[in-house]
Amino acid sequence: MWETADASGIEIIDQRHLPHRFVTAVLRTPEEVATAIREMWVRGAPLIGAAAAYGVYLAARRSEADIEPAARLLAATRPTAVNLRWALDFVQGRIDKSRSGEERALLSLAAARQIVADELERSRRIGEHGLALIREVARRKSVVNVLTHCNAGWLACIDYGTATAPVYAAHDAGIPVHVWVDETRPRNQGAALTAFELGEHGVPHTVIADNAGGHLMQQGQVDLVIVGADRVAANGDTANKIGTYLKALAAHDCGVPFYVALPSSTIDPSIPDGQAIPIEVRDPDEVRFLEGFGSAGLQRVRLVPVGSPALNPAFDVTPARLITAFITEKGVGPIT
Amino acid sequence: MWETADASGIEIIDQRHLPHRFVTAVLRTPEEVATAIREMWVRGAPLIGAAAAYGVYLAARRSEADIEPAARLLAATRPTAVNLRWALDFVQGRIDKSRSGEERALLSLAAARQIVADELERSRRIGEHGLALIREVARRKSVVNVLTHCNAGWLACIDYGTATAPVYAAHDAGIPVHVWVDETRPRNQGAALTAFELGEHGVPHTVIADNAGGHLMQQGQVDLVIVGADRVAANGDTANKIGTYLKALAAHDCGVPFYVALPSSTIDPSIPDGQAIPIEVRDPDEVRFLEGFGSAGLQRVRLVPVGSPALNPAFDVTPARLITAFITEKGVGPIT
Repeated sequence: MWETADASGIEIIDQRHLPHRFVTAVLRTPEEVATAIREMWVRGAPLIGAAAAYGVYLAARRSEADIEPAARLLAATRPTAVNLRWALDFVQGRIDKSRSGEERALLSLAAARQIVADELERSRRIGEHGLALIREVARRKSVVNVLTHCNAGWLACIDYGTATAPVYAAHDAGIPVHVWVDETRPRNQGAALTAFELGEHGVPHTVIADNAGGHLMQQGQVDLVIVGADRVAANGDTANKIGTYLKALAAHDCGVPFYVALPSSTIDPSIPDGQAIPIEVRDPDEVRFLEGFGSAGLQRVRLVPVGSPALNPAFDVTPARLITAFITEKGVGPIT
Repeated sequence: MWETADASGIEIIDQRHLPHRFVTAVLRTPEEVATAIREMWVRGAPLIGAAAAYGVYLAARRSEADIEPAARLLAATRPTAVNLRWALDFVQGRIDKSRSGEERALLSLAAARQIVADELERSRRIGEHGLALIREVARRKSVVNVLTHCNAGWLACIDYGTATAPVYAAHDAGIPVHVWVDETRPRNQGAALTAFELGEHGVPHTVIADNAGGHLMQQGQVDLVIVGADRVAANGDTANKIGTYLKALAAHDCGVPFYVALPSSTIDPSIPDGQAIPIEVRDPDEVRFLEGFGSAGLQRVRLVPVGSPALNPAFDVTPARLITAFITEKGVGPIT
């Protein structure tokens, strides 16, 4: 995500088309930003926070009266990731006391830019702290096998990513690292985005069905699991992409360390535990249909019988007791 | 699966095309049966056992000298399901002492027919025993929610099925039952076959991504899990479709009863525990590509970047400690 040259909009990678096509889109209004977040042209907790901040700026740029409704519209796009609300609050705090519309536009732009810069710096530090964990494993293993679920890479996080930041840091430091990429049904962010990212960066990786991770852990083929987060409650319970809980259970059962990598903007101290985190339920057609690359280009196919309904919860909550430690920009340790 | 009118072959449902098209195929040679098993035109532990038995019969019918190589060919098609080997041994035992080629053909046909009849009767009894478990839940719940993984229904088992036999029995007995159908990546036997079966039978069901089951259990939306098995070791460790282990972990963590339904032909007393069960690794393109129903009929699409490799283990082992009880034709209880 980057600003257009005249800062009249933002340009984003429309991630719905990856890995098959690299498509970008320019968003010039808060409504366009809201659509892009809701329909997951952009996704990933840190990225949607930053995009939403720019959405407020685009509203402020248009008219002072647009700011409040735009913020409400943007806040309602996706319920689980707290970064979205956090970013909106951050921008609001910066413009609250400004005296003119012009000042509000300038201050909101500055706030959005700061969110991006801060997330970048947090990602870099998450990479550094996670690198130490991988380096430790590398002292006894010739190749370090990391399993990750969904996409918490640079596509989700502006740059480096959260869960993948330590992997990139290790790869760049010359440590042999290999990533098991959960395909991450139903939207296949792992197969489509994480595999694409890692491939572009030259990191060895293997895509697996979400079902396979437990078996690989039983077989000793996973040294550590690193996932991202969409919201972490005050007690450390962690909402992340649906299926994360199953991998945490398997890691616990097999004695594999399970890490959650996140910028501190993903922590929601107002929520005591995971039960209170709202879980987004998305369109069941995301389960019933799938888009892939066929002989005629991108094609949508149906997987289930015509009359069979589906349910599509987008996140689950991993209890803190299953998490070995959190990797934040501040270091490796517990949340509380 | 059924015999052709003159018993010169068997007719099968080519399950690769379900739920989109209902295609049957006639197999007249052991080589054709082997191909159908290996490439999963027929699948499911009990069904491939019965099909393999007919394969030996088709060899015996052709020539006495063909029996031995055909049995070897059929045994090598798929490594994990023990029913295959069990059925071949059963037929072999019946023809070992026969004096003529003609007698061998007749005896092997009788043996194959007996396997089918026995599996039918076992399925019926599994249904009865499982029905009692569902009836028990129905005393305190208005609808009984069953989660199942993969397909252990009549498509896998000639009739009734194993894991679904109790569901059909409950539905037919007027007990309100609803099934959460794991789509079961990478071959989608749940989304394609179990959903199709249940729909044909009028059983309410909802397809979910394999990732969603743990979340549903956390939310109290699953009353019991029933899965099938491909091989059960002497200590009760159970090989079943990849991902079963993850659901067993979640059921254990959430206090949801986890049952394995199987005919006793799936028990392998020669194997002490799950570590010794051979796990089939299938073509990675089953992960990288997917077939669904698109605007131009059945279409194959690619899900991952061109250069990304995949790994495709087809089964995992659920430790006996995570299994509440086994449902066999003999009743509900431990294996040992």
